[in-house]
Amino acid sequence: MPVQPRTPQGVLELLPVQQIAFQRMLDTIRRNFELFGFLPVETPAFELTEVLLTKTGGETEKQVYFVQSTGSLKQGDTPELALRFDLAVPLARYVAQHEHQLNFLFRRYQIQRVYRGERAQKGRFREFYQCDIDVVGKDELPLSYDAEVPAVIYGIFSQLAFGPFTIFINNRKLLRGLLESLGVAQEKHADVLHEVDRLGKQDRTQIEERVAALMDAGPAKQLLDLLTANRGDSRAALAELEAFRADPARPSTANFKEGLDELERVYTSTLALGVPESALQVNLAIARGLDYYTGTVYETFLTDHPKLGSICSGGRYADLASHYTKSKLPGVGISIGATRLFSQLLELNLIATGARSITQVVVLNVEAPLAQEYLKIAASLRAAGINTEVYGAADKLGKQMKYADRSGAPIAILLGTRERDAGMIKLKIFRENREIDVPAAELVARVRELFG
Amino acid sequence: MPVQPRTPQGVLELLPVQQIAFQRMLDTIRRNFELFGFLPVETPAFELTEVLLTKTGGETEKQVYFVQSTGSLKQGDTPELALRFDLAVPLARYVAQHEHQLNFLFRRYQIQRVYRGERAQKGRFREFYQCDIDVVGKDELPLSYDAEVPAVIYGIFSQLAFGPFTIFINNRKLLRGLLESLGVAQEKHADVLHEVDRLGKQDRTQIEERVAALMDAGPAKQLLDLLTANRGDSRAALAELEAFRADPARPSTANFKEGLDELERVYTSTLALGVPESALQVNLAIARGLDYYTGTVYETFLTDHPKLGSICSGGRYADLASHYTKSKLPGVGISIGATRLFSQLLELNLIATGARSITQVVVLNVEAPLAQEYLKIAASLRAAGINTEVYGAADKLGKQMKYADRSGAPIAILLGTRERDAGMIKLKIFRENREIDVPAAELVARVRELFG
Repeated sequence: MPVQPRTPQGVLELLPVQQIAFQRMLDTIRRNFELFGFLPVETPAFELTEVLLTKTGGETEKQVYFVQSTGSLKQGDTPELALRFDLAVPLARYVAQHEHQLNFLFRRYQIQRVYRGERAQKGRFREFYQCDIDVVGKDELPLSYDAEVPAVIYGIFSQLAFGPFTIFINNRKLLRGLLESLGVAQEKHADVLHEVDRLGKQDRTQIEERVAALMDAGPAKQLLDLLTANRGDSRAALAELEAFRADPARPSTANFKEGLDELERVYTSTLALGVPESALQVNLAIARGLDYYTGTVYETFLTDHPKLGSICSGGRYADLASHYTKSKLPGVGISIGATRLFSQLLELNLIATGARSITQVVVLNVEAPLAQEYLKIAASLRAAGINTEVYGAADKLGKQMKYADRSGAPIAILLGTRERDAGMIKLKIFRENREIDVPAAELVARVRELFG
Repeated sequence: MPVQPRTPQGVLELLPVQQIAFQRMLDTIRRNFELFGFLPVETPAFELTEVLLTKTGGETEKQVYFVQSTGSLKQGDTPELALRFDLAVPLARYVAQHEHQLNFLFRRYQIQRVYRGERAQKGRFREFYQCDIDVVGKDELPLSYDAEVPAVIYGIFSQLAFGPFTIFINNRKLLRGLLESLGVAQEKHADVLHEVDRLGKQDRTQIEERVAALMDAGPAKQLLDLLTANRGDSRAALAELEAFRADPARPSTANFKEGLDELERVYTSTLALGVPESALQVNLAIARGLDYYTGTVYETFLTDHPKLGSICSGGRYADLASHYTKSKLPGVGISIGATRLFSQLLELNLIATGARSITQVVVLNVEAPLAQEYLKIAASLRAAGINTEVYGAADKLGKQMKYADRSGAPIAILLGTRERDAGMIKLKIFRENREIDVPAAELVARVRELFG
């Protein structure tokens, strides 16, 4: 009795037409990463457990998948290996390990799958692609790189053409400074910022109640008003912060001043890099959950699909690899969760699958004795860079035509003895449902023309 | 105390310059797969253990890596998941699972990593890339596809330019038929073919002794002579087999006749597909270890580096997925072990790392107040598809130059107030160690010219 063929829960396995669309998405992401001079890095799927799990009890570490071979399984050993759960920890390990062979500032991109033992539920993946870029400095990292990151995001999502989108930027130093100015105790900052991060995503009244419990009600309202008042108007938001900074009644702290300076400079420089104002917004309510981030933070939303949440997030951090090296390595980066994004867009019917196949021409097997001719035609098309398949079976022409049409190739080639003797080749153009005869010597040029 | 950053044994982690070369290799392989109309498939790194381990006790299954999350680890469960150890089993599972949604003949390529719990030793990888193509038919698969496979191999290794190479082809049906004609008992065929596969790799005398132990000494010598006599001369080898077939003194079996027909047709059709005779050889001593293969078999050797062994192997099989479906799915395919091949070529200094970086231009930070200008220059180059990086730190120009040179980018751009006021931009061309001034308006065109 055969075993039922099936995949584990929580993975995204695609049919070829979908996989073609997914590859195009990854190729576009990679192309843009390279356009900005990021270098490719790949790390092993598994790391030494001891190296991977350096933090103490984070949420993600509870979801780690351990790896062990048959031998060690029998001995009941503690697993020596574990699958990476993100690309940030492997990057830290990589930079620390190869520190003396890398050219700093180190700019890398990494497009690989990561693994998490998530509870099985819709939209949660146990295996998914992340597409990361980071710029890592030694001791220091100029602010100009914080502006480059949204320019990369802009290039990618413009080309992917999933509809209008907005890159939101903010600065955690500024947020902390604001809390300082409002007299919020240091130890409550993380909790307040956690609530701030919910603005625009959850009910405002409830957020305000919870923030008021962490500080006084007056400043709580003032804070949330300030963070949300100028939503959609970056210049007004920056101007109001300027006014806040200039107001002698409130002492604005060093964090506030620095944070505001940074935010203004990142905003201006990002525009200088060609990102239009319509796609870039200062949004003071973006805080990012992770305390890891210490300056600029980013989130990206599809305008027509806000429920997808942020499709590309990141920020600046003070030190990448303190677990692995004494060198101070500040960095800035972003991550695109490609698998989750693709599966959501697929459900929304926003991915055009089958619109364009990889195969461009199918040479049909019209008369078996001409088989060698078909192979030669295919070879000449391939030599011209045209993706070509030869139908090998001696099936009825109707079946062959159906196969070629279903395969998504725009053109089929038919050559019978009659055409051959006349020095012609017949092209079937599926989209126009028409056939044309072209001189054999002109085949490659004519096919190229048809592809524009 | 920091944890020592390091990778597990048996993985290949590359520095960026090496990774660039490796990516180029994978890109070339993928490009050629697509040129022949193969469609992309990716499968999850882990499969359900029950689905993956269907065979009984194969060598590879002993090396399987099991995967389990923290939760199930504590409960001591039998692991539900395991990492794939090749791409053939996942292909079988994929085709059986999605059988009714696929367009047959199904042609797929798959370029992913696989995992084996190998003993730690030089040249043995626990994680490595395989690059596979297969054509899978339903019920039947025409022989013409057996000729397409070496044409793909030829395209790939011509473009990779690792030096001259030879694709060896043979036919297991022919070998079995030959053994039948020589009166070797059916149950000894596998053992004899295992010895045959060692011809050219191990000492002939010892092989002959072991074969003689499996059959009579006379036929043993006759067999080995026949299989090795015309090495390097495909036509002579085929002619001698023809003579063998025509000899009324020896009854040649159906297997022998069919196998010889197939081999002749595959050889001729492969030449028709544009593979030159110099790169294709009938080699009767190629048997492939696996009984999985039932017809055409392939191995590929670099002429100047025979010790690397076969760098690309495969063959035809009678039924892909009998474990998962009752449908009969014959196929033909090959696999390139890209990680092993790359690491060997790297050791032989045959990989030109750093010869060409991904980054083409580095815009230097000559005067900090011109920072916005630098960003705009970069944006204009990127819009023209030129991979461009902006140096962001206010370091001394010497340090910046050194960084740009080390990064492998062929060009650096220098713009000071003087150049700006004159409407000019200075280009440093590292390879020629020379600087030229170009009008700002012509920058993109001039940089393009330099890349030829």
